Amino acid sequence: MEDCDFNINIAVVGIGLIGGSYAMALRALNPKSIIGIDKDRKTLDYALHKGIIDRGYETGGRFLKEIDLVVIALYPKDTVEFVRNNIQNFKMKVLITDTSSVKRDVVNSIDAFLPDGMEFVSGHPMTGRESRGIEFASADIFIKANYIITPSNGNTSRGLKVIDIMARRIGCSNVTYVSPEEHDYAVAFTSQLPHAVAVSLMNSHEESSMDHIALFAGGSFRDATRVAQINSGLWSQLFIMNSDKLVNEIEKFQKTMDRLKTAIMYKNADTMNHIFQNAVRRRKILAKR
Amino acid sequence: MEDCDFNINIAVVGIGLIGGSYAMALRALNPKSIIGIDKDRKTLDYALHKGIIDRGYETGGRFLKEIDLVVIALYPKDTVEFVRNNIQNFKMKVLITDTSSVKRDVVNSIDAFLPDGMEFVSGHPMTGRESRGIEFASADIFIKANYIITPSNGNTSRGLKVIDIMARRIGCSNVTYVSPEEHDYAVAFTSQLPHAVAVSLMNSHEESSMDHIALFAGGSFRDATRVAQINSGLWSQLFIMNSDKLVNEIEKFQKTMDRLKTAIMYKNADTMNHIFQNAVRRRKILAKR
Repeated sequence: MEDCDFNINIAVVGIGLIGGSYAMALRALNPKSIIGIDKDRKTLDYALHKGIIDRGYETGGRFLKEIDLVVIALYPKDTVEFVRNNIQNFKMKVLITDTSSVKRDVVNSIDAFLPDGMEFVSGHPMTGRESRGIEFASADIFIKANYIITPSNGNTSRGLKVIDIMARRIGCSNVTYVSPEEHDYAVAFTSQLPHAVAVSLMNSHEESSMDHIALFAGGSFRDATRVAQINSGLWSQLFIMNSDKLVNEIEKFQKTMDRLKTAIMYKNADTMNHIFQNAVRRRKILAKR
Repeated sequence: MEDCDFNINIAVVGIGLIGGSYAMALRALNPKSIIGIDKDRKTLDYALHKGIIDRGYETGGRFLKEIDLVVIALYPKDTVEFVRNNIQNFKMKVLITDTSSVKRDVVNSIDAFLPDGMEFVSGHPMTGRESRGIEFASADIFIKANYIITPSNGNTSRGLKVIDIMARRIGCSNVTYVSPEEHDYAVAFTSQLPHAVAVSLMNSHEESSMDHIALFAGGSFRDATRVAQINSGLWSQLFIMNSDKLVNEIEKFQKTMDRLKTAIMYKNADTMNHIFQNAVRRRKILAKR
């Protein structure tokens, strides 16, 4: 596979919202073929019927010997297991990438057993959606998204370049390189903490009072709790794999919240205004990016 | 003024986003006239030019003697002051309403000095918008919104009925009656707490790290911090006027967050899943309303 040539065989593992979107977006790069792997037969049939994939398998196997690029869109633990279980099946020069939203454990685990010659470049498209499943997949989710690549010692400049170019060709506007550690530090704050907050906001009142509360719940509450409709299985795994960093972020947030609480308790308008203006300045920077 | 007849003179005080939207929505009720009061001359000129109001004044005055219904869309303290300063100007049978998002202090203050015959029915349309100013006003903000009325001892069934009908005629789908106390209890949770959380989320990292953080900030972070671009003057007033209830909500939230933090710290997947599933159930109830 040449650096800028995607005239290759690609496998996408996990044909849900993200995997399905990859398959759709990668089609525009004119690959030789796109193979879909998903344990759910109906999902494969749907993806075949829609032309999203050319062939479908319920699990890995010898057919992987033909595959140049493997894109894994599974939960982090399943990502590691898929690679581990298919070491014998992969092509000697295979390039593997993933989409997990925790990196340190995934990269360390795979690097520990991946044979020389095979390469794993870990990536994370910043493209979450509320919905799940192939029906909601769309090539558009990558348009102008940020794409994070977390290089490790096992990576070659060629491997990194292929994933970089892939990310740009499917529509991402920024490709950023950070260490797996730095990635996990950032997502603990920017993704896991807002999820933990949303869940805690919803749980701080009784379920029986929700009908009444709904009458008063305007945009601020609905926005802050949107992601409380959380995928339990995935997020308990993500929180556990990044436990140390997330706990650290929760504690920083709790301290900041305590300062505001004290200002409210003592009706200290000056401190409150100072706190608010700090938040406004930070949010403006975020709004620009 | 008959119960269902809005062929009357109306004054709207404070021609910003909310006041301007009231003026526009009330026009459809075919009032005799809509008078605008705003300290900013340019705002009045804009509203006159657009036909949103028929006459404009920079402050209250004798002209209020002709006004049957006064809708005040000012900050809570300014709402109280406007009524206090114009007691001599109001018509004997005037009906006054407001839009403040804290009620106990506003209702108690005005009830304490309002003469017999004049009536204040406090209301709160659940229609926040991020933008400010008459340019963003629209009659549409009331469509299908919830409208809260907080009756007090001074209210008559006629007064309540007029505001109820007004709320429905401008497009609100639910009109709910709760005490000022109960209103403030609910908004401490549904509006003030999410604002306090958004501000604290933004402030828990250094301003200098925001450019980097923006690369990782997906929908969950952006949604949770949207209202961190807060109007300091208004929100410090709201937080102070509802200090006791808001502090109570922050503490409930902190306890809920602590339970989740402990589960994360001990990597307790079962507890985490239980917490997540509770949040999912509650958020589903909210989504339906």
